[in-house]
Amino acid sequence: MSSPAELFKLLSCGVYVIGVTDGNQYNAFTAAWVIQVSFQPLLLALSINPQHRSYAMLKAGESFTVNVLGKDQAELARHFASPIADRLAKLPWRPGKTGAPILSQALAYLECRLEENYPAGDHRLILGRAVGGARFQPGEPLLYRDTGDMNGASHLFPEKF
Amino acid sequence: MSSPAELFKLLSCGVYVIGVTDGNQYNAFTAAWVIQVSFQPLLLALSINPQHRSYAMLKAGESFTVNVLGKDQAELARHFASPIADRLAKLPWRPGKTGAPILSQALAYLECRLEENYPAGDHRLILGRAVGGARFQPGEPLLYRDTGDMNGASHLFPEKF
Repeated sequence: MSSPAELFKLLSCGVYVIGVTDGNQYNAFTAAWVIQVSFQPLLLALSINPQHRSYAMLKAGESFTVNVLGKDQAELARHFASPIADRLAKLPWRPGKTGAPILSQALAYLECRLEENYPAGDHRLILGRAVGGARFQPGEPLLYRDTGDMNGASHLFPEKF
Repeated sequence: MSSPAELFKLLSCGVYVIGVTDGNQYNAFTAAWVIQVSFQPLLLALSINPQHRSYAMLKAGESFTVNVLGKDQAELARHFASPIADRLAKLPWRPGKTGAPILSQALAYLECRLEENYPAGDHRLILGRAVGGARFQPGEPLLYRDTGDMNGASHLFPEKF
């Protein structure tokens, strides 16, 4: 028998740094639960833990960036998942047209305006409308499964269905 | 400048066969827009085109399976994306405890009960609660980007942000 944690690892996802601002402060955090959900309008969904302080900033600023990490950027993913106070310090970034921070080192970014905010169990499901984006460098995206159990997420799963 | 279609390709996703039933008929179709969205309860999100006849069946049956395709199963993905009438004919499958079809050839499956059904632009975002699942064979999951432009989806994107 396979556990829920083992089976859910077979759902492929990338690794992203989500950038947010409330107009005064800036923050960014690593996330993996991102997918496209609509072509017209061009929407993506991001599942976010509402206890994270970035959630309040995202709601206040009504926008976010999705900075796509590349295969060789697992270190950057760990940095933006770490508990240090100012993760953006000492790294190159600039505010996008919505104000949300764009990481210059990422493979590419998409910038989104908050469109919907739905309950989703212990998370919130944010729909963002893509209003801009660019590719910064060539390369393949990093996959979450290639980072190992980066956030120690395995223990968060129920043991059984 | 990168087009929306080029940038959205950098959002990593897998390839799945989604199985549905309304209690009388069975159907299954290829999908890529699937992610986990919550640990407790254990929820995943599936973005589905509501004009697809499988959408009505999923709503009626209030459940679905997510059959995970493996690296060497792009052919199976194409089969379940093709316009033939009965895609399940001649392939081994069995109904799960919810009734939704489980493909024996998949790498693994998850079985879900419909939990929420949210609007998401030109799609619907279905939240499913995982109530079962198993792994059938070893191997790596297939990535959508490794199938090429399987469904000719590129033309569905807006040309600009």
